[in-house]
Amino acid sequence: MSGNSIGKLFTLTTFGESHGPALGCIIDGCPPGIEINEAEIQVELDRRKPGTSRHTTQRREADEVRILSGVFEGRTTGTSIGMLIENTDQRSKDYSDIKDTFRPAHADYTYSQKYGIRDYRGGGRSSARETAMRVAAGAVAKKVLAKFGVQVRGYLSQLGPVKIEPSRFDWNQVNQNPFFSPDVQAVTEMEAYMDALRKEGNSIGARINVVASGVPVGLGEPIFDRLDAELAHALMSINAVKGVEIGDGFAVIEQKGTEHRDEMTPQGFLSNHAGGILGGISSGQDIVASIALKPTSSLRLPGRSINSQGEEIEVVTKGRHDPCVGIRATPIAEAMVAIVLLDHLLRDRAQNADVEDRIPVLR
Amino acid sequence: MSGNSIGKLFTLTTFGESHGPALGCIIDGCPPGIEINEAEIQVELDRRKPGTSRHTTQRREADEVRILSGVFEGRTTGTSIGMLIENTDQRSKDYSDIKDTFRPAHADYTYSQKYGIRDYRGGGRSSARETAMRVAAGAVAKKVLAKFGVQVRGYLSQLGPVKIEPSRFDWNQVNQNPFFSPDVQAVTEMEAYMDALRKEGNSIGARINVVASGVPVGLGEPIFDRLDAELAHALMSINAVKGVEIGDGFAVIEQKGTEHRDEMTPQGFLSNHAGGILGGISSGQDIVASIALKPTSSLRLPGRSINSQGEEIEVVTKGRHDPCVGIRATPIAEAMVAIVLLDHLLRDRAQNADVEDRIPVLR
Amino acid sequence: MSGNSIGKLFTLTTFGESHGPALGCIIDGCPPGIEINEAEIQVELDRRKPGTSRHTTQRREADEVRILSGVFEGRTTGTSIGMLIENTDQRSKDYSDIKDTFRPAHADYTYSQKYGIRDYRGGGRSSARETAMRVAAGAVAKKVLAKFGVQVRGYLSQLGPVKIEPSRFDWNQVNQNPFFSPDVQAVTEMEAYMDALRKEGNSIGARINVVASGVPVGLGEPIFDRLDAELAHALMSINAVKGVEIGDGFAVIEQKGTEHRDEMTPQGFLSNHAGGILGGISSGQDIVASIALKPTSSLRLPGRSINSQGEEIEVVTKGRHDPCVGIRATPIAEAMVAIVLLDHLLRDRAQNADVEDRIPVLR
Amino acid sequence: MSGNSIGKLFTLTTFGESHGPALGCIIDGCPPGIEINEAEIQVELDRRKPGTSRHTTQRREADEVRILSGVFEGRTTGTSIGMLIENTDQRSKDYSDIKDTFRPAHADYTYSQKYGIRDYRGGGRSSARETAMRVAAGAVAKKVLAKFGVQVRGYLSQLGPVKIEPSRFDWNQVNQNPFFSPDVQAVTEMEAYMDALRKEGNSIGARINVVASGVPVGLGEPIFDRLDAELAHALMSINAVKGVEIGDGFAVIEQKGTEHRDEMTPQGFLSNHAGGILGGISSGQDIVASIALKPTSSLRLPGRSINSQGEEIEVVTKGRHDPCVGIRATPIAEAMVAIVLLDHLLRDRAQNADVEDRIPVLR
Repeated sequence: MSGNSIGKLFTLTTFGESHGPALGCIIDGCPPGIEINEAEIQVELDRRKPGTSRHTTQRREADEVRILSGVFEGRTTGTSIGMLIENTDQRSKDYSDIKDTFRPAHADYTYSQKYGIRDYRGGGRSSARETAMRVAAGAVAKKVLAKFGVQVRGYLSQLGPVKIEPSRFDWNQVNQNPFFSPDVQAVTEMEAYMDALRKEGNSIGARINVVASGVPVGLGEPIFDRLDAELAHALMSINAVKGVEIGDGFAVIEQKGTEHRDEMTPQGFLSNHAGGILGGISSGQDIVASIALKPTSSLRLPGRSINSQGEEIEVVTKGRHDPCVGIRATPIAEAMVAIVLLDHLLRDRAQNADVEDRIPVLR
Repeated sequence: MSGNSIGKLFTLTTFGESHGPALGCIIDGCPPGIEINEAEIQVELDRRKPGTSRHTTQRREADEVRILSGVFEGRTTGTSIGMLIENTDQRSKDYSDIKDTFRPAHADYTYSQKYGIRDYRGGGRSSARETAMRVAAGAVAKKVLAKFGVQVRGYLSQLGPVKIEPSRFDWNQVNQNPFFSPDVQAVTEMEAYMDALRKEGNSIGARINVVASGVPVGLGEPIFDRLDAELAHALMSINAVKGVEIGDGFAVIEQKGTEHRDEMTPQGFLSNHAGGILGGISSGQDIVASIALKPTSSLRLPGRSINSQGEEIEVVTKGRHDPCVGIRATPIAEAMVAIVLLDHLLRDRAQNADVEDRIPVLR
Repeated sequence: MSGNSIGKLFTLTTFGESHGPALGCIIDGCPPGIEINEAEIQVELDRRKPGTSRHTTQRREADEVRILSGVFEGRTTGTSIGMLIENTDQRSKDYSDIKDTFRPAHADYTYSQKYGIRDYRGGGRSSARETAMRVAAGAVAKKVLAKFGVQVRGYLSQLGPVKIEPSRFDWNQVNQNPFFSPDVQAVTEMEAYMDALRKEGNSIGARINVVASGVPVGLGEPIFDRLDAELAHALMSINAVKGVEIGDGFAVIEQKGTEHRDEMTPQGFLSNHAGGILGGISSGQDIVASIALKPTSSLRLPGRSINSQGEEIEVVTKGRHDPCVGIRATPIAEAMVAIVLLDHLLRDRAQNADVEDRIPVLR
Repeated sequence: MSGNSIGKLFTLTTFGESHGPALGCIIDGCPPGIEINEAEIQVELDRRKPGTSRHTTQRREADEVRILSGVFEGRTTGTSIGMLIENTDQRSKDYSDIKDTFRPAHADYTYSQKYGIRDYRGGGRSSARETAMRVAAGAVAKKVLAKFGVQVRGYLSQLGPVKIEPSRFDWNQVNQNPFFSPDVQAVTEMEAYMDALRKEGNSIGARINVVASGVPVGLGEPIFDRLDAELAHALMSINAVKGVEIGDGFAVIEQKGTEHRDEMTPQGFLSNHAGGILGGISSGQDIVASIALKPTSSLRLPGRSINSQGEEIEVVTKGRHDPCVGIRATPIAEAMVAIVLLDHLLRDRAQNADVEDRIPVLR
């Protein structure tokens, strides 16, 4: 129930540091009888894996996942699922130079202050390496959701100044380029932008969108566990995320009621400004969420900071880092959305399994 | 633990429908010995109360709160605090016309589908009337936080197209106008805008910002209960909210690392793009959050919809409604931030009370 | 999530002190569409109500319950149910004599030490008066369980030295006498025993048994939320309970495996030493639990104690008290069992709704 | 939050099957800065380890624990602690004979019915092998508790008909014999009893007592998370436990109030019938709990049962089993008590850290 867990019925708990011996997780509450194997989970992990293009960190991690429990003869048993990824690329590096350094915009300072101790090797627990286990758990959630006809897909919609062009949107392109861009033409621009950025030694932010389709009407619990609130929680918990939108998001500020409201007809909704959620409960339309990721703060351009003695220092980050953490964030965002949706699907089923549909369900 | 609760150590659970006999809540986990009385809570409730200006709903609710337990001889006892607000303006209205109507962009359709039954009187449980109890609980949280030197304040920063001008920002103005605007000059524009909007019969969105100052470093729990994630959860759970930002929010997409990172010196941080949270943990700087509220969907301009038989209908909302729900949302947003901060302050104290500060704490 | 709540999906949260203005509770997660009204809940409350015979406290409480939310047109709506009982018999008594007194075996001392403050009027929050809300919530749980064919019944099996005689067991007698004794002949003995005890000014312990029948196989979650563990939790949380047994309980210590194991045949189990729970999961047999309640410590026979200054004092309890708290505990124990069973029924349904029975279910 | 977790602030979540590749756990919420290493945990694991005497199962498990995260340079970091034990003695045995068999009094039937699938190898998740991780986590909890002066110790007080003699009680003996008996003379009787039992092919129950000393006053949360209720939960969750007592337990039924109440003097309590808990909150006295463990149901004496087709069969359990599961249960019971106490110590500190003691604390 502490901070390393998420979900009330489909619960994910994780452990592991960037440069510790291993990362791991426990999934609790997975329905039984679901066919799942390590290879399927590996497919998702490989999407997030570093080092697959020149635009991401060159750290080499196999990210090979082992299922240690909860799956028997190829199917989930309903008991807790343990998974493990050994860290293989733990360079026996000398960290003495960063041991007492608080890198600006990193969690070094806050972890040190909170706990009085900090695993300084590569960010320790605050490293985005931790998200590997989220992706592994998300793969399980996606598999279960598929049984219910739910599909969760994401894409990068903006990389710094480079936006995708909606008219060129193609889901089939998303997994064909290192950026998860649905606009193949924008990829060229993104590559050029990243190459220049790398030369400059700087980093940049990004925007990821996630769309869930086939979501049944009725997911989400009033008042505080609204589906949008839980999605915001899950998405904001991803490293570097600074903003979350559902549907039209911040654009609603300047919308009028007549413009925003999604009218309904017997044939379905006429628009989806709400992003598939009304009153915190899924409407049956596509769930649409969008997140903003900040530029990574691991730069080789020097920055001002202090050390653990409170003395002024200059920080230069060496080593292997993602100049745009958003590039690898699409599979993570999908995973978080999948976990939340499955959790709510189970919660809804617990309470409302006996409810009979009174009216035709719209899509 | 179900959806009507928030917080793990300072826990708020609420009940009540818009037109039921009463609203109520239970606060669990409040520290003992805190001086609190109904009058102090009433001050906060009165800030949210409808009917205080021509720009909000004319429903007349006294919103008088009674403390039923957990406070003895003027101080909290550490046991659960029960609070109650009777609904006094429950007009014995005839609801037969809206009983089978799904108002577009309202929760009518989703509640009906989820539960197979719906309290249709004024939105029932999905009405923003429910937020009164949040404000009452927030008043308690603020009182406790004050003991720790934490102050939570909010303001309206944008109403439809009317933005406040940062150079005219004055905290002292916020509670002096019905909009919670810190820019007194913008109030005139807002009034004009609202008057025109009311004539038109339409509604509009808004943006609210919340700032918490005096927050100790160290609040927030890795990995999933990051302070920003919990704030996003709490803020997105407010009716009509469609977006949440921490610090620079969506602006980070186009920021470079050198621009975004908040450099540190022995005298403190040089900027606050992060909004006071690094790695999900408070840094000691001001916590800064911003939310977008959609325009209300209760309009007297007709909209297309369906009824519970799935037949096409036209919906016109009569009665008393807020044309801009954002106007009364500032105290609610403050309350949610206060509840989250207090919850995390207690959680941090549970685990880390023995940690001695190793380095000088920055502000 | 703090201590005043129980249940993960069917969640009860309570508030209220013995001599405060009111007691109340919130039920979260109740399935929608359940017919329930105040009169039905009142029936259960009246079973627990004080002053119905000369053997219980003469405090006069109407214990009239009001439903404030979550029920619409006679049926639950799936949203949170608020209930309230006003305290009517709050004598404006002078408590100055007990204000600084720690009555032995009461919670006066521990509450004072924990919180540094204590509502000393009649025990405050630690009073068994609080259990009224459990009974009210239990009435709702029983109503839902009835839909699933589950019935929860309890009885007093021992009052001090007076044991019921199994051969005279008759469920129909239980609600026909003030002791909830299923053995009508034992009632005479109990009355004589209680009359003597009252004269003596002393108090006595008791044993209550609860039996749940019609429980589906499969309730209970490995590892820590085993059905027996959750029952033990819920039953031990009742005031004055010092022991909990499932099935044969402490008798198993001297049983051999051949004696204890409940053999199965295609026609069903041949015995029920396990009390209906195997591996923490219900087997479909009757769930059988038993609890021991200590003698109340409110005696007019003087006892040694200390006051809040740590000085030696003599304590004599005046006023209206139950000489055997066990007498009124049967409805409370039933309520707790009902709440736990419903919670687990919902939890099981969330995860395992798609499981098809592979084998004939035994009873 | 699902069933494989226990604790709200110090949270243990476990995974692993009897004959799967590994067992593991995650501890969340451990305070930072605690010195802990694998060797210390191993000491506790070795106490529970099978095969250390002829009276327990001859399965050979090294039970070697690895810490995978949350400990850095020998101290806890405040982040989640992952631990792993590989199963080394997974005989590649043919399980086809028990695959469809429901062994009486085992969880085979209930797991199958609940989940529709079952890892039948050695009991799978329902095997007591799972308790190894509890002992590992308990070792960590004990280490933290030691910092607060709390010590948790257990012993076997009865093995079938053989009871220890209180006058011969010696804590120093407990870890000197395979039974955890504090009465060295009773050990001879126990050995003789067990030898005869093994010859007979039968099994027997046992009673374990746990005593926690140095517990601060004030642990336990009203109403439902009373310390005794949480202890009952934790202890009843141990495999084979059928009864839990706090203090005098079931003996209170026949006690009078004057006999049961623990009188207080300025020098301390005069007795401890309550077992150190008043009103659900620790009193500063020793916490005393007792549990009853049933005889194992793995017998070579044939029993009647059914198979998964519902057909009548005869079951004979071969292989390596504990004829008295109680023998190895002492370290497990200690672990559960330690985990609950630490969880409540942290919870109390969160809410009540600012409470100043008003009166002299008794012991």
